[in-house]
Amino acid sequence: MSNTLTNNPSAASSIEKPFGSVGIKAVEQNIMMNQFPMDRISGSLLSSSGKTKGTNTTLSDKLYAWSTINTEHQELRRTALDLFTDKSVFQPSSTETKERQRVIVLNQLQYFLSKTFGKGLINISDLRNDPSKICALMDCASQFDDNSFMTKMVVNNFLFGAAVFNLGTEKHHRLLPDIQSGKLLGCFAMTELGHGSNVRSLETTATYIPETNEFVIQTPKRTATKWWIGNAGHAVMASVFARLIVNGEDQEVHCFLVPIRQPNGVDLMPGVRIGDCGPKFGMNGVDNGWIQFESVRIPYDNLYDKYGSIVNGVYQSPIANPSRRFANILAQMITGRISISYGCARTLKVALTIAVRYSNKRVQFGATPTAPETPIIEYPTHYTVLMPMIATVYAFDAIKSYLCKRFCERSDEGEIHVLASGLKATISHYVTTSILELRRLCGGHGYSSYSRFSSLIASNDVARTFEGDNTLLYQQVAKDLLIQFKKEYSSNKFTGTLKYLGKNTSLLLSEHTYTTYRSDKDHLLNLQFLRSCMEYRSSKLLIDSANTVSKAYKVSKDAFDSWNQSLETLIHLAKSHTEMMIVSKFIDSVKNVQDKETRETLKKLCQLYALKCIREDMEFFRNTNYLKKNKAKAISKLISSLCHDLSKQSLELVAGYGNEEALIESPLGQLDGDLYENICAKVGLFSKDNYPQHILDAKL
Amino acid sequence: MSNTLTNNPSAASSIEKPFGSVGIKAVEQNIMMNQFPMDRISGSLLSSSGKTKGTNTTLSDKLYAWSTINTEHQELRRTALDLFTDKSVFQPSSTETKERQRVIVLNQLQYFLSKTFGKGLINISDLRNDPSKICALMDCASQFDDNSFMTKMVVNNFLFGAAVFNLGTEKHHRLLPDIQSGKLLGCFAMTELGHGSNVRSLETTATYIPETNEFVIQTPKRTATKWWIGNAGHAVMASVFARLIVNGEDQEVHCFLVPIRQPNGVDLMPGVRIGDCGPKFGMNGVDNGWIQFESVRIPYDNLYDKYGSIVNGVYQSPIANPSRRFANILAQMITGRISISYGCARTLKVALTIAVRYSNKRVQFGATPTAPETPIIEYPTHYTVLMPMIATVYAFDAIKSYLCKRFCERSDEGEIHVLASGLKATISHYVTTSILELRRLCGGHGYSSYSRFSSLIASNDVARTFEGDNTLLYQQVAKDLLIQFKKEYSSNKFTGTLKYLGKNTSLLLSEHTYTTYRSDKDHLLNLQFLRSCMEYRSSKLLIDSANTVSKAYKVSKDAFDSWNQSLETLIHLAKSHTEMMIVSKFIDSVKNVQDKETRETLKKLCQLYALKCIREDMEFFRNTNYLKKNKAKAISKLISSLCHDLSKQSLELVAGYGNEEALIESPLGQLDGDLYENICAKVGLFSKDNYPQHILDAKL
Repeated sequence: MSNTLTNNPSAASSIEKPFGSVGIKAVEQNIMMNQFPMDRISGSLLSSSGKTKGTNTTLSDKLYAWSTINTEHQELRRTALDLFTDKSVFQPSSTETKERQRVIVLNQLQYFLSKTFGKGLINISDLRNDPSKICALMDCASQFDDNSFMTKMVVNNFLFGAAVFNLGTEKHHRLLPDIQSGKLLGCFAMTELGHGSNVRSLETTATYIPETNEFVIQTPKRTATKWWIGNAGHAVMASVFARLIVNGEDQEVHCFLVPIRQPNGVDLMPGVRIGDCGPKFGMNGVDNGWIQFESVRIPYDNLYDKYGSIVNGVYQSPIANPSRRFANILAQMITGRISISYGCARTLKVALTIAVRYSNKRVQFGATPTAPETPIIEYPTHYTVLMPMIATVYAFDAIKSYLCKRFCERSDEGEIHVLASGLKATISHYVTTSILELRRLCGGHGYSSYSRFSSLIASNDVARTFEGDNTLLYQQVAKDLLIQFKKEYSSNKFTGTLKYLGKNTSLLLSEHTYTTYRSDKDHLLNLQFLRSCMEYRSSKLLIDSANTVSKAYKVSKDAFDSWNQSLETLIHLAKSHTEMMIVSKFIDSVKNVQDKETRETLKKLCQLYALKCIREDMEFFRNTNYLKKNKAKAISKLISSLCHDLSKQSLELVAGYGNEEALIESPLGQLDGDLYENICAKVGLFSKDNYPQHILDAKL
Repeated sequence: MSNTLTNNPSAASSIEKPFGSVGIKAVEQNIMMNQFPMDRISGSLLSSSGKTKGTNTTLSDKLYAWSTINTEHQELRRTALDLFTDKSVFQPSSTETKERQRVIVLNQLQYFLSKTFGKGLINISDLRNDPSKICALMDCASQFDDNSFMTKMVVNNFLFGAAVFNLGTEKHHRLLPDIQSGKLLGCFAMTELGHGSNVRSLETTATYIPETNEFVIQTPKRTATKWWIGNAGHAVMASVFARLIVNGEDQEVHCFLVPIRQPNGVDLMPGVRIGDCGPKFGMNGVDNGWIQFESVRIPYDNLYDKYGSIVNGVYQSPIANPSRRFANILAQMITGRISISYGCARTLKVALTIAVRYSNKRVQFGATPTAPETPIIEYPTHYTVLMPMIATVYAFDAIKSYLCKRFCERSDEGEIHVLASGLKATISHYVTTSILELRRLCGGHGYSSYSRFSSLIASNDVARTFEGDNTLLYQQVAKDLLIQFKKEYSSNKFTGTLKYLGKNTSLLLSEHTYTTYRSDKDHLLNLQFLRSCMEYRSSKLLIDSANTVSKAYKVSKDAFDSWNQSLETLIHLAKSHTEMMIVSKFIDSVKNVQDKETRETLKKLCQLYALKCIREDMEFFRNTNYLKKNKAKAISKLISSLCHDLSKQSLELVAGYGNEEALIESPLGQLDGDLYENICAKVGLFSKDNYPQHILDAKL
């Protein structure tokens, strides 16, 4: 290590650059770089396409008001939506070339930040002070185009910036104003080529040099190359995760502030190599790149020292246990997971609005070849797919409001971690697979990029992977539940997340259940019955999981192995617990709604969602005898009839999502106008040109 | 109509162009247009990357040989694969701009056709003479890039060309040599803006003009605009579906040969407007466009007159009933459905090979932070997803071989139609949703376009819609089954597709079933037991469907309405029947395998596939009491252990798919070399450049 160090001229030159001055220079230079032409600014200031929400007259308005409880923040929302509808800056770019998209999105980012964070409408410190503002912002930002803008903003402010805020101390926090206003662009360099999920085994090193009180950041081998780093094309600074080596001892992964570009924002710092990771399934407006470090020296102060520091050449940490220390460092990513849930749920709201409006306008087939044709939403093959999705998104709203409230209260860290992880996995997966089905339901017209389904599928898909792979998040949920279970089982006094367990002990101890044979509508729609089904399942799976893991351990005597052998049950537990929480909080929320019409509508949606969850896991409910044959049959019949009833309200229900009309941007989903005229206009059929000549003239 | 006609100068001018001369001119001019530079041709002649298949030494070779029964055609396969591996013409282009992709793909098409169809290796007439050649070609073509090339070829030869061949007569068939060799490019103009599924209600008109013995092709209204027409950017001729109007009488939809471009292949014919439909989710190398006709005159001979003609000014048809006549016209599309099944199945073989190889090389997490990490395929969360997919694709191979054989024999049109429709829907849906999960299993690296998952998801997705929307195809399956059921029920002598019904009558008449309580491995893996489960389900659902529809009819007295009310049951029937056929033919095929190792391996895959199908519909099997609780539980356990066993053979099993190694084209799926070195090479990490300057220099 020290060998490469001394032999490296570029490294030597970088020694002369103390952190402070680079930071400040970067900021100053960036201010000059990012001047905006006045006309752009005034153009936007004059625009005012934002509609005022919250005038609760129609059912849709009331549903929207309910769905945004705890994340109202009217001024922030209106400002953000006004900016997104200003086409002079926020033109959708997902069908442009990758290179052009990136320039457009960079410009959108810096412009947006200067108008919001820059004006103090929201701050990085809201990560602690008022996370509900971040949720509100995600809810708005995810309506625009393909989420490239939103993702780049999250990377800069809530990953790079969050590391500075959460892992750093006083001396680092002075950078926050320039980060959040977009003057200082940064990236979050955690993932490596060889390690995405197992980040505790990252290989990049930060070796402490007592002589100069510096660290040397090094990419020791190819697999240690930082990979998929968002904002790598534009960032001046990076929050780099690396193994801290002090006196030859590995103190495990810590985070460091590393200048990667010269203040001019273009030239790289000595010893830094950066390249593009290339085209992606979606979000090509985000510049994901790879980064390598060759003996890059940074001053001691660039260590974010909240969870670890070096005093008189000796490593110190407020948390002795390395696992717990690293867990604490990672725990800071929780806001990211919560905001993903908000972003994904909103994306499905946009996609569903497009699909439902199309299905109401598109007619196909009639009783006879000459008879008037039927709107496709009237076919069971359509409404039995659409309506459960609509209900599910309302269910997500209920639990998101609850999670956001609890998170702001910071009352029960454990519950919040379990819920945030489970929801991120559940929502991101559901949204991606659902939009793929919406594309199918809209047939050929849905396959056009103009429909937006393609970019929404592609951009959401990665949410199943980043900020914690879904499979791992479910394992964290299961692990936390089992730990709490073990702690509380002996006393049989279950608290917090496991409160519901008590009630079910009787059921669980006996093989056969005490549930009623009733299969009448009243019983099946009874909210208490639906809650019980969900609670029984989680309880049963929690105990099964505990048994499965311990049985496996008795045989293998290997904790890692016995855990892996039990994964199927553990994942089932995590999913079930998350669904139980959603149903449970949806029920609580519905009961508290004052307005009768709103309450009755939400109740139906809640019933449909819960019954859908039960039916999807009928194998469990039947094999545990919790549901008898006739009851099971009655449930599937009931789901169909609920879907049929609700389908008559489909347009009102998606209007209740309160999408910004101007941001729908799909000829299939326009509220007004003739469907086919909108499609024709989009492909330029009304222009007098014939087939684009360049296609025919183009030569290889 | 006649008014627009006489007032239209452009129309007048087109009268002078008799079909024959335009056709011939088009051909001659195209020959000149499409000359290939000698170096390109010789370059390809010298290339020989194709490996010789069929030397059955390893298990993989034997599996491959089994999977290609009935579609061997070694010379055709080798020639095609050699061409696809010639990078001078077949460079993957799915990440290029839409416009560039289209030029590249056009060039690939004409080059490929000149080397295959042009040399008589395969002919459009094989649609009738030997469809297995078409299956073999699809199996090879779908390995290359994103299916843009394959789709454009299918459109030109097997849609435009098939219409000429199947709907036309002698006088039209003389065009076939130039069509199949790529000298005469054509498109298949069926779908319209307003009608994709309900094609019997197409609105484009072809009005017969006795005075000049011509037809006037007209787009009477916006919704009649031909839409999504593949090859619209390059086609000189179109097979246009339009309502034939004779003496003011609507004789319903017929097909016509309409010159849409001048013989130079660029300028449009008078009265024709063509435009691009714009960017799509996938396959942007295919030029899908819209076409409008304004009083376009064509000579009488341009009517494909196999199913309808005009004699002495009077319409005549060999099939009096219009519905039956149109059904016959559409029936010609069946080869398209069969080839989609081949194309999609092969695509999943490529995707699975990439995912399985990656999962064997990628390691993540170990027993301790310092312990060696585990290949991700060893986690149940991975192999319980991967192995059933591997088994399913082998199951698809079994049924495809059967279908292809029956199709070549043309023995039972009814059975073939039911099977081809059900399989197209089942396979296309399974493949699209599966590749999306493979992307997820490969995490961030799977999200890179270089992994190929993104383009494979996007290009396969549309297969669920085109050549018959899946939901409609399932309805056709259900309809055909019900018709046959009605016919044969009285006699209780079930034949052909319904043969199995006889056995099950006893079961079906009684509410409780006679199945055994056995839940031991031997019983559950017994092929006869597995077959019985599948057959029982289809039988039960067939009778349920008949009852559901007739009950609904008794109430509504409306056939259209009662059918739609029963859609959920009907679709369930169609899916179940298709799965029953797959399991049944897989079992038959396994039993006939001579080689023990091959037979045992295929048997395990067959068992896994069948058990997976049963588990996915456990709600049905439990609610009908066909499977008891303990049996159901045993089945899910058994599936996990089968997946675990087979996972040890994962690399061999995907090798058995016999993908052309050189066409895998994914750094995640290379057979040899270091995973990470392959990825780094792909993103250009080994080149000395830093972050692409153009990204930073680019201005808005």
